Amino acid sequence: MKSFPRIFALLIPIWVSIAALAFPAAAQTDPLPSWNDGASKQAILDFVARVTAEGGPDYVAPAERIATFDNDGTLWAEQPLYFQVLFAIDRAKALAPQHPEWTDKEPFASLLKGDIKGALAGGEHAIVELVAATHSDMTTEEFNKIVKDWLATARHPKTQRQYTEMAYQPMLELLAFLRSSGFKTFIVTGGGIEFVRAFAEDTYGVPPEQVVGSAGKTQFELRDGKPVLMKEPGVDFIDDKAGKPVGIQRHIGRRPIAAFGNSDGDLQMLQWTCTGSGLRFCLYVHHTDGEREWTYDRQSNIGRLDEGLNQAAADGWTVVDMKKDWKRVFGFEK
Amino acid sequence: MKSFPRIFALLIPIWVSIAALAFPAAAQTDPLPSWNDGASKQAILDFVARVTAEGGPDYVAPAERIATFDNDGTLWAEQPLYFQVLFAIDRAKALAPQHPEWTDKEPFASLLKGDIKGALAGGEHAIVELVAATHSDMTTEEFNKIVKDWLATARHPKTQRQYTEMAYQPMLELLAFLRSSGFKTFIVTGGGIEFVRAFAEDTYGVPPEQVVGSAGKTQFELRDGKPVLMKEPGVDFIDDKAGKPVGIQRHIGRRPIAAFGNSDGDLQMLQWTCTGSGLRFCLYVHHTDGEREWTYDRQSNIGRLDEGLNQAAADGWTVVDMKKDWKRVFGFEK
Repeated sequence: MKSFPRIFALLIPIWVSIAALAFPAAAQTDPLPSWNDGASKQAILDFVARVTAEGGPDYVAPAERIATFDNDGTLWAEQPLYFQVLFAIDRAKALAPQHPEWTDKEPFASLLKGDIKGALAGGEHAIVELVAATHSDMTTEEFNKIVKDWLATARHPKTQRQYTEMAYQPMLELLAFLRSSGFKTFIVTGGGIEFVRAFAEDTYGVPPEQVVGSAGKTQFELRDGKPVLMKEPGVDFIDDKAGKPVGIQRHIGRRPIAAFGNSDGDLQMLQWTCTGSGLRFCLYVHHTDGEREWTYDRQSNIGRLDEGLNQAAADGWTVVDMKKDWKRVFGFEK
Repeated sequence: MKSFPRIFALLIPIWVSIAALAFPAAAQTDPLPSWNDGASKQAILDFVARVTAEGGPDYVAPAERIATFDNDGTLWAEQPLYFQVLFAIDRAKALAPQHPEWTDKEPFASLLKGDIKGALAGGEHAIVELVAATHSDMTTEEFNKIVKDWLATARHPKTQRQYTEMAYQPMLELLAFLRSSGFKTFIVTGGGIEFVRAFAEDTYGVPPEQVVGSAGKTQFELRDGKPVLMKEPGVDFIDDKAGKPVGIQRHIGRRPIAAFGNSDGDLQMLQWTCTGSGLRFCLYVHHTDGEREWTYDRQSNIGRLDEGLNQAAADGWTVVDMKKDWKRVFGFEK
């Protein structure tokens, strides 16, 4: 027993080194290295510090730390067209031999002649036609494989990179930082839920059960005696604009305390998030970098940010100036 | 440097005691103390041991360890009527003064005369009417509070216990055991998603985002300038029978590896679960205990288990004999 104090003294450095292993220098390392120092980065860091400060006035229990992210234009790029539309175009071309009737049926006729602008001149109706023809009449598992195969081979028309490489590096860091701060991160996308699930886990670290999105009808049936879930052509849910808070309630069942978007399609999600009680955080990604990415906002047909900019200014939401606030946009930049 | 081996030797018992702190005697303690030893309990323990054995042939990565549970009759009792119907009846009585027209409109007229059997003679249509009248025209947050208040005060007609006390003790242990074995536990209920969410976290340890259920329509709107989610009268989704695998795909996006039910309403969920590749586990709770609970199966209007019993026998699913397999049914038993 004589040696007890000595053993005890020995324990101290051991415990310290164990603690260091378990919490690798979290305080000293910048969790957002691709963000330039400035108001946007500081606002994120302050919010997270306040809601995680136990005993502090803004503390939020981990179960309530729900953060929701739009996908197109918020987590990955969305120009020159939503990537899912580019996928649908490639699928339509691949399926064309089985559909001789498409040669004189829009939007397929223009599309097969290489006239994408003409094909999409029909607006939302053309896109619904295109998605219905390319996203249904197969099982959910078959669709998942088709998307994965496409993502593994297709290249973005401008950068020639894989689409998943066009995720924004600063946003990947933000997702990881929130999760390491006890947040549950959800994607709430106007895009198709099954399309986004096919890469969300690998690309964003977001599991399928944390993806909310637009959805077609699905039917349970027996095929050759085996249960399958068939994707049907009809639309079940549009997770955009006022649909986003509805999708959030349906899937998550609690109000987020932080929400991230880039367009007017995200406005209601941000309104819903930032009018709850307690400390809240709303952020818009503003596409201001025509060199590294694209420049667009109030006049754009894709990712229009007009009303949202007004409300962000009025309510003091954080607006990320991509050009100024982001050290890197994509991970593949040197 | 001479003393190095001695320090090293000291480290061993320290590490052992740290390991003991981190994994408190899990192997020695029975994780299912309210289950009698027998085939059902053994089948659960074997399944969990096999899918969690790293390097073993049946190992399943934690992310894929999805277990889905029916609620009524599987996690808590459902006699003499689904508890949510008892809630709707109480609500209709409370709301009656605001609805003079109900005095000659079914199912309300019978119900207000105390004739519940007469009120429900209209079958599913009567229940839809009753639920629409009592579950809509309020915000999701208001509804949540109404359910919580009811659960805090209402008493079960037979046991005089709170409804949440009528959760099955062996199933609570099973939920906790699966979670401690790296599973994510979901509720997949034919009942209303918002109704079940109001108590699932406190009673079952299942957060709102892991509850899948039937749902009414919800609308995002501004009320006095503040965003709210209004519950509308229309039905959006019925999470029963063939709807269960559809609800699972919609919310979870992967096929469960284990599923737990008690009625033919759960049959498709169990089929979908147990026809996936790799080791799977399907279990039916069979209500065989007329003394501690109720006895019913093939002929019952509530929780009918007929086709399901046949398929369980044919496919070797586990069928829990409540009377034989459960040491206790409810936590309030001595």
